[in-house]
Amino acid sequence: MFVSRRTVRIEWGDCDPAGIVYYPRYVEYFDICTVALFEAVGYPKRQLLKDFEIAGFPMVDLHMRFLIPSVFGEDVQVETSIKEWKRSSFIVHHRLFKGEDLAVEGFETRVWTTHDPDNPGRLKSKTIPDELKAKFA
Amino acid sequence: MFVSRRTVRIEWGDCDPAGIVYYPRYVEYFDICTVALFEAVGYPKRQLLKDFEIAGFPMVDLHMRFLIPSVFGEDVQVETSIKEWKRSSFIVHHRLFKGEDLAVEGFETRVWTTHDPDNPGRLKSKTIPDELKAKFA
Amino acid sequence: MFVSRRTVRIEWGDCDPAGIVYYPRYVEYFDICTVALFEAVGYPKRQLLKDFEIAGFPMVDLHMRFLIPSVFGEDVQVETSIKEWKRSSFIVHHRLFKGEDLAVEGFETRVWTTHDPDNPGRLKSKTIPDELKAKFA
Amino acid sequence: MFVSRRTVRIEWGDCDPAGIVYYPRYVEYFDICTVALFEAVGYPKRQLLKDFEIAGFPMVDLHMRFLIPSVFGEDVQVETSIKEWKRSSFIVHHRLFKGEDLAVEGFETRVWTTHDPDNPGRLKSKTIPDELKAKFA
Repeated sequence: MFVSRRTVRIEWGDCDPAGIVYYPRYVEYFDICTVALFEAVGYPKRQLLKDFEIAGFPMVDLHMRFLIPSVFGEDVQVETSIKEWKRSSFIVHHRLFKGEDLAVEGFETRVWTTHDPDNPGRLKSKTIPDELKAKFA
Repeated sequence: MFVSRRTVRIEWGDCDPAGIVYYPRYVEYFDICTVALFEAVGYPKRQLLKDFEIAGFPMVDLHMRFLIPSVFGEDVQVETSIKEWKRSSFIVHHRLFKGEDLAVEGFETRVWTTHDPDNPGRLKSKTIPDELKAKFA
Repeated sequence: MFVSRRTVRIEWGDCDPAGIVYYPRYVEYFDICTVALFEAVGYPKRQLLKDFEIAGFPMVDLHMRFLIPSVFGEDVQVETSIKEWKRSSFIVHHRLFKGEDLAVEGFETRVWTTHDPDNPGRLKSKTIPDELKAKFA
Repeated sequence: MFVSRRTVRIEWGDCDPAGIVYYPRYVEYFDICTVALFEAVGYPKRQLLKDFEIAGFPMVDLHMRFLIPSVFGEDVQVETSIKEWKRSSFIVHHRLFKGEDLAVEGFETRVWTTHDPDNPGRLKSKTIPDELKAKFA
């Protein structure tokens, strides 16, 4: 399974009065890493939306585990991969490391969606093409 | 001139490792106050965009002055008004107070825009209707 | 069990290019609601940290479910309560409603921590006082 | 005068329902660029605070000009330099380019501060050492 690796610099503005990363920022880091994962296999997000005629891949379930805090100025590494493909949804797995140590872990369940032609303004799920899945093999 | 007043609670996540508000958050507070100003005269943003057929009022110039820091848990007061109307732009003035003391001040120059029918994806300025300006008198 | 209720206005800047709330913002809304829950029983966060001599209640596990999207300008209601108290940790339960419909749900596991006198700069868990738990009964 | 250059990727979550960067994010990008400027001359922020015994360099005045919008997925270039050194304050100049075109410009006036020994919890300005200024020549 393809794994995308990315270094994230912890910025001053990502940290709270306790001096550590304000945890919603990790959720945002991981969203950026999911976008980077698709880009790494050839699909920048804008192109992904266009080529596959989707509205996006909204989050339906998110599970985060916070093991070790980080402070501003640190560079951490995030490893991102697809844990599981289902018909019209998929699970993204993120692991944020400080050196060898797992510091934060996330599991995102996202749905492959398109605009619903029968209900303007609403989305509906769509089958994920095998052609895309194959890119991650 | 109509003045909108709003209490803003300084949240933990708005503050940085120095324990004070991370200054870009003030810029965001003021954007919210500008939206609230229009709502206070009868135009929630969604309705404003629809009724006046505009794409929005993007920022073109922003000037902020930071006089006194604030910390999490504080309730501060923001006074917002239109400082000046021009043909297709306007200046919003925000003053954030801690008790009697002016703590942060902002001046936003925004442009009244519509989608340009001759250039898809581009915006162009539009005359601000007198009917709207009158609401702030 | 005590339930804190809070109305949250969905702001323009909380929404993404799909026009719906960027999901990390819900994580932040819920953090604010947790702080508000403690304040509702008499402990604003600053006072809580001081009175109980804690460094905070960092997140160790977060589970979010996203059922219905929201758009800017909407007012949604969040109900927050303590789902479970353990010796030195607790689970906060948030339910965000649009009218009668559950739109987003979150479960936060947080740890009651103090500065570790034996390891400067590190935190360690601490027993949650019964006096505090009683406030939520 | 030393100029630091940095590429900034515009992320999905930085953009608003109009599909363009939510302008407070530019303010944040520029703060990150200021930190990067000091790091580029040998002073990561954490080391800067420690070596020069300062509490930070809080913003007192910010002027932003927004000329061209950007959308998610774009890579923009930011050029950052010190425009002017005063005794205990300095002006940072940022220019964000899309290709050859200036898209956003910012001027930050920041004060070199230390904790005030006579007033616990308060900051006071401090003379910026010539040794530091020389690094930017």
